[in-house]
This record gives sequence, C-alpha cells and structure tokens, in this order.
Amino acid sequence: MRTALYPGSFDPVSLGHIDLIKRAARIFDKVMVGVAQNLHKKPLFSNEERLAMLKEAVKGLERVEVVAFDGLVVDFARKHGIRVLIRGLRMISDFEYEFQMTLTNRRFAEDIETIFLMPSEQYSFLSSTLLKESAALGADISMFVPKCVEDKLKERLAR
Amino acid sequence: MRTALYPGSFDPVSLGHIDLIKRAARIFDKVMVGVAQNLHKKPLFSNEERLAMLKEAVKGLERVEVVAFDGLVVDFARKHGIRVLIRGLRMISDFEYEFQMTLTNRRFAEDIETIFLMPSEQYSFLSSTLLKESAALGADISMFVPKCVEDKLKERLAR
Amino acid sequence: MRTALYPGSFDPVSLGHIDLIKRAARIFDKVMVGVAQNLHKKPLFSNEERLAMLKEAVKGLERVEVVAFDGLVVDFARKHGIRVLIRGLRMISDFEYEFQMTLTNRRFAEDIETIFLMPSEQYSFLSSTLLKESAALGADISMFVPKCVEDKLKERLAR
Amino acid sequence: MRTALYPGSFDPVSLGHIDLIKRAARIFDKVMVGVAQNLHKKPLFSNEERLAMLKEAVKGLERVEVVAFDGLVVDFARKHGIRVLIRGLRMISDFEYEFQMTLTNRRFAEDIETIFLMPSEQYSFLSSTLLKESAALGADISMFVPKCVEDKLKERLAR
Amino acid sequence: MRTALYPGSFDPVSLGHIDLIKRAARIFDKVMVGVAQNLHKKPLFSNEERLAMLKEAVKGLERVEVVAFDGLVVDFARKHGIRVLIRGLRMISDFEYEFQMTLTNRRFAEDIETIFLMPSEQYSFLSSTLLKESAALGADISMFVPKCVEDKLKERLAR
Amino acid sequence: MRTALYPGSFDPVSLGHIDLIKRAARIFDKVMVGVAQNLHKKPLFSNEERLAMLKEAVKGLERVEVVAFDGLVVDFARKHGIRVLIRGLRMISDFEYEFQMTLTNRRFAEDIETIFLMPSEQYSFLSSTLLKESAALGADISMFVPKCVEDKLKERLAR
Repeated sequence: MRTALYPGSFDPVSLGHIDLIKRAARIFDKVMVGVAQNLHKKPLFSNEERLAMLKEAVKGLERVEVVAFDGLVVDFARKHGIRVLIRGLRMISDFEYEFQMTLTNRRFAEDIETIFLMPSEQYSFLSSTLLKESAALGADISMFVPKCVEDKLKERLAR
Repeated sequence: MRTALYPGSFDPVSLGHIDLIKRAARIFDKVMVGVAQNLHKKPLFSNEERLAMLKEAVKGLERVEVVAFDGLVVDFARKHGIRVLIRGLRMISDFEYEFQMTLTNRRFAEDIETIFLMPSEQYSFLSSTLLKESAALGADISMFVPKCVEDKLKERLAR
Repeated sequence: MRTALYPGSFDPVSLGHIDLIKRAARIFDKVMVGVAQNLHKKPLFSNEERLAMLKEAVKGLERVEVVAFDGLVVDFARKHGIRVLIRGLRMISDFEYEFQMTLTNRRFAEDIETIFLMPSEQYSFLSSTLLKESAALGADISMFVPKCVEDKLKERLAR
Repeated sequence: MRTALYPGSFDPVSLGHIDLIKRAARIFDKVMVGVAQNLHKKPLFSNEERLAMLKEAVKGLERVEVVAFDGLVVDFARKHGIRVLIRGLRMISDFEYEFQMTLTNRRFAEDIETIFLMPSEQYSFLSSTLLKESAALGADISMFVPKCVEDKLKERLAR
Repeated sequence: MRTALYPGSFDPVSLGHIDLIKRAARIFDKVMVGVAQNLHKKPLFSNEERLAMLKEAVKGLERVEVVAFDGLVVDFARKHGIRVLIRGLRMISDFEYEFQMTLTNRRFAEDIETIFLMPSEQYSFLSSTLLKESAALGADISMFVPKCVEDKLKERLAR
Repeated sequence: MRTALYPGSFDPVSLGHIDLIKRAARIFDKVMVGVAQNLHKKPLFSNEERLAMLKEAVKGLERVEVVAFDGLVVDFARKHGIRVLIRGLRMISDFEYEFQMTLTNRRFAEDIETIFLMPSEQYSFLSSTLLKESAALGADISMFVPKCVEDKLKERLAR
C-alpha cells in the first residue's frame, strides 16, 4: 500500500489545503495529514484545536487520516514506513522555501521523496496569514475556509 | 470624478512613496492616501506621527488627500465610493504579496479594482525596513526620505 | 476625458485579454485596444485577422475601441493625447519583461504612465503560445477564447 | 497498479532526467517515459534517435518503460488509463511554465493530476540547451549525460 | 594589496559560508570576514560565540582574517581602506535582498563595490534558519556545519 | 597581476555594459572584455562590427582590453591564465541563466571563479534586444548606447 504524508501547521486549515488533500488521495492509497506540534512561531490555534479542525474538515474523505507529529518530518515518516512527502506549491516564494526544505530533508533521509502538487487556481493565492489578518479586520472569509474554521475564527477574534 | 485610494502603512513615508503618489495624481482626478491604523506589526511611528509626516510630505501636491483608515481596505474604499486601489510594484516579492492581496480583495469586493504602478528606478530598491535599519546604524538617509521624516527619524533614534 | 491605451499583439485575443479590457473599462472613460502591426516575430494571424477577431470579441463592450498601430507605442499614445498605457500582469516573467518595457518607455516619454492590472485567477495561467500549441495538437480550447477565435483557429489549423 | 507518465522532448536525455525517472520509480508501480513526437521547435535529434537514446539510458531500470507519443499529453494518458503526470522542477522559470501547463492540462482533463519532483542538486542547473551549446563548443559533457548520448552528440557535432 | 570584506551575521557559520570564503580567497589578496555585532533580530549565539566559531572554522585558511564590526558595513570598509564587499547568492530571495542592500550601500558609498559569488551547488539550499530549526528537532546536521558549530549547537539545544 | 574576463556577445555594447566594465576595472588590475565570435543566434552586427564598436566605446578606459574569442569561455580564460569571469546581474531571469552557466562552467573548470556585479540602477532595465527593437521602431536610444553604436544602429536600420 502506498501511503503519503502531507505535513503542515494548518493554522488553520483552509479550502486550499483540502483541495490538495483530495488531489493527493486520488494518487495514493492513503494520505496521512500530519499536524506539526512544535512550531517555530506561536500559532493562533493550539495543537488540539488545529488537529480538531482538520479532522472535522476531512470527515468523509476516504483514504485520509489526520495525525499529530512532532520532531523531524522525515523521522516521523520513516517510523511509519512512509516514503513520500507531499507539499503544495502556490507561488515562487513557496518554491524557494520548499526547495530548501526538500533538499535538506533529502540529506537527512535519502530514501524519502518529496512530491509537489498545485492547488486549484481559485486557491493559488490563499495565504493562512492573510486569512487571519483579514478575519481580524472583519472580513467574511467563508469562501476560503471550512465552516468549522470560520466559526472558530469568529469565536477567537471576538474575545 | 475618478478617485483612487493608495493604502499603506507609511512607516515612515519615503521619496519612493511620493514618486508613486505623483504618478497616480497624473492619472486620477483625486488620490486619497490611506494610512492604515491597525497594523499587524508594531510600527516605529505612531498613527498620528505617520499621518502627520505624510501630510507634511505631500503638502502642495494638487488633488492629493491624506486620510487615516482602519478595518479592511475594501470596506473603507466602498464607504467612500472609491472603486480603484493603487499599489506600487518594486520587486518580485512585492509582486507575490500584492498578487495574494489583490485576488483576496477581489473576492471581498468584486467591484473594486487594484492597479499597479512602478516607481522611478532610482527608488526601485527602496525598502522602509532597510531605511530604518540604516538610519539606526548612523547612515545619512536624506536622499531617500522627505526632510520632515529625516528629522523625525534622527530624533527618534537619538533617544 | 481619461483615455487609456491597451497595446498588444493579440495573436489571437483570448478571454484573458477580454477580462482585462473589461476591468480597464471600469476605471477609464475610454479604453483603446491597440493591435501592433509590426511584430518582431511572425504572428500566426495577419494584421487584418487579429484586428477583426478583436473587434468581434469586444462588440457590445461600452467605451472600448479597437485600433491598429505601428511604430513605438508611446509615439502612438502621444499622437492621440493618451497618457496612460495598460498592461496585464500574470506571472513573474511578465513582470520582468513589463518592468524593462515600462522603464524604457518612460525614458522615451516621461509624460506617459503605465499601469498594470491582474486578470481573474481563472485566466492567470493563460498563454497565447500554449493555446496555439494545444489547439494544434487537437485540444478543445473553447473555454479560453472567444467563439470567433475558436472557429478561426480550427480553420487555420485544418489547412 | 499505479502508473505515472513522465512526458518530455528528451533532446537528448540527460543524467538529470535519469535521476528524476529513478525517483519516480520509487513512488509508482510503473513509470512510462513519453517521448513527444511533434515538437514545436525542430529538435537536434530525430524522433527515432531520441527514443533510442532514452531506451538505452534506462536499460536495467525496473518498472520503467519508454514510449513515443504524439498529440496532447492528457489524451495519451487517458487512452492508457494513466492518471498521474510527472514533471521536474529545477528553477523558477521551470515553475512558471509548468504552472501554465499544469493548469491548462487540468482544464483539458480534470481527472489527471500533475506532480512535481526535484532532481538532485547536482543536476539542478542542467539545461539540455546549455549542454548542446557547450558540446558544440568542444566541452567534455560526459559528467552530464549517459554514455550513449555523449557518443551520439560527438558524432552529430563532428559532421 | 586587494582586500575584500565579507560581512554577515554568521549565526552560526555554515559550510556554505566556508565554501564562499575559500572562493573569495582565490580572487583577492586578503579576505576579511566581518561579524556584525548589532543585529536587528536577536541571534542564537552571542557576538563572542559567533566570532569564536568563525575563527575556529577558518583556522588554517591563508589570507583570511576574522573581525568584528558594528555600524554601517560601508563605514567599516572605508575606515580600513577596503573597496570591495562580498556577498553570497543562493536563491532568488537572496537576490532581491542583496539587490536592495547593494544599491542602498552604493548611495552611501559610491566608491565601494559589491561582488557576488555563488556557493557550490551542494550548499545552494543551506539556510542558517532551517539548520537551527532542524537541529532543534533533533536532526544530525554534521554535514552542513563545521565540527565546532555542531558541538556548540548541541550544547545550546541541550539546555 | 589579477586579470578578469568579462565575456559577452555585445550585440551591440550598451551603456549598461560600459558601467559594468568601469566597476570591474576598479576591482581588478586588468579587465579583458571578450567578444564571443560563435553565437548561437545570428547577431545583428558581425564579429568585426561588435568588436570595433566595443573598442571605440572603451577607448580611454585604463586597464581595459578588448579581445575576440571563440570556443568555451573557460578554455579561453585558462589559455590566458585568467581565473576570474565577470558577469552582470540585472534581473531574476539573468540570475537563473547565470546560475546555470556558472555551475556548468564550474564543472568544466573548477579553478575558475565567476563573480557578479550589479549595474547602476539607471541601467538595470536595459536589454539589448529591447534596444534593437525600439530603434527599429524609430526610438531615440542615444541615452542608452555609446555614440558610435547609435550611429551604427541608425545606419543599419536605414537600409
């Protein structure tokens, strides 16, 4: 069985992420979506919240599983016998960061391959940072995030 | 009357911004320069200071008005019947951020259009961040900013 | 009256061009679409064909006029009292070429300003070259071009 | 069985292509390498030559098959029940072209997904064009291409 | 005697930096490596630590000297009669920042020239930030940094 | 004595090239400007013309010598005991091509180093192709090229 791991911070998950997960699920037998637990920047949502929103958002998608992970992505992948990492490519700046990350990871684990997918063009400009900033300024972001994220964001920003 | 809104943080205003404002004023009947009040990063200068320096810097320019705004840019534009936003494009990284911002704004307000202008090449490399860092290290930045900004920066850094 | 000139080769006109023309027509009193007559590369369609397809494609759009021009864009603009050029920005490579072109034009005519518009994201990846290549390989390109262009392309490729 | 198609012109195949084919073969049950027969630019090597060199170069690689194709890539994929296309990403300019190609192909065939792989950094700068130009000027390119390609190139350039 | 200054934060020095220093030492009579003392972001290692690690790492390299500096790079260069600055170029984002920095520095000191070198492709993806993040997650980074840095990083992260 | 080689097609030489040559002459004891004789694309001006215009344009510059070369740049450099190549960096697309070229050359000749210089921002957008196209359309390009090139271009285009 061919399993792929899609790691990320998902702070919060957007419809762009979901689009990518669906695409990956058409290619692999199983897609594990890994929510990073130790982020370098303090996230808006806690580990538990990010995990819960993602689980809610992929409910009903076949062959998709959500897991939490900490430590190096490649260590986690190897421990679970996963040989393929998935990343999304939206923009040039993505490309550069992903290029650095992929070649660094390859040195850490030569047997693990990273593949890139492009989201639908309607999500090609989606940025979690911009979404959070816009929501904080009162924007209606319902067309960009799953319903559960919209609610959670409103609740968080209302405090 | 065709009015355009040029929004930004202007922390502080540079001669590159002024160059852009002059270019915009040749195209539109009126250019409103909007100073964002709620920034995501703490600015060096307060809302009042950024507003005052910008007003001083555009004094004498016809058809240019400086205003403060908070909330979403598109909401402010709509409230004032403005249908055109202006942004400057200096570099590739500008381009990407502006691309994200423009397409996101378009979803929030399909009736508002963003146009881009290029500054004179003598300002194409100007970065407010670099300016502030250079001034903090003792650089003479008088060729990059209006006189009132130079004075204010010296005063601020002397503390 | 504020008139803007949108120059190009339009070989052939695509729905991405039409999207841009509509956006420009919301900003200016009149948009002149200029079809370049002396191209550096031999076009697929003749001057007359490119002009005719464009006229057909913008039929019914208010405040839009199609004209042929040769020589320097800025000379043509100046002769007609036009002070604003319009260009589309889809990608990084566009950006660089347009940057070169804009700054070069500015030296030729300091009084003429170039502004940039972004097409809808559904056309952000459209390339006339790719369209022609795909059509030559038998692709159905009806979702990318006006009906009159689709017919003309089929006819041309059938030879 | 999960099969992926890696289409290209392979004019000629380089060690960078071989690196990518090996990576793909670790991810999929079978990798079909498709040699495009109707190129827009006249290739240095004929259809037969490009096909023969590629076959020679992948000899011994398991799960890899070389095929010729003409027409649209997505049509060929569909006819063979292939749902995944593979492309290499070396540079920014690759990225843009591939972005255009992928989103265009997606419109032609929504059920076919394109994935991207990065070659080893030792091949990240390899360009078939640069290779041919260098060989024509007398460079020793044996570290960049399979032995059979080196011989063929010498023979061709000696004429 | 032609001396060049290679300024940086070196937080910490990597094998990519060492590769660049060696390349510079083949071009100039003397290479001064300048460790910036007043950084805009708080570094992981203190001024003394960054200086000591760099000195240890270049031990034995002829014509290379390590110095601390504060204030503007161009002021330091001028005070020591240095007319050439050296910077590394790995990626597009480097390019943009370096472009801004170089043109700004040129305005501050027209007589000082900046030259760019490219590191070996095996270090083209190295990022000090990524290195620190990876080490913090338990990665073995011995192939990317001098031995003294590896030890120091382990010690620091063990706290 | 430290000599550097600045290779190019110079079809024709522009003020941007001259700016770069002057910068290089401040860094090295001698700058050889090498005019490539066997270009992949047919040039506008012959080998003799490109050489003559360049010689005329650098007349009076100390420590600058103009030479013709054919074959690989690194072979020519080595034959003359030159260990440093100079290239200009204007834009992102330059950067990519130069990156490919530099890393390829490094494989051909590990002992030869390439350094990059940035032209003055007033020439950062200059493209020989655009210059020729503009001149062909009747533009006054006297602010972009040496006098001898302007005359030659007019003469050539008048035919």
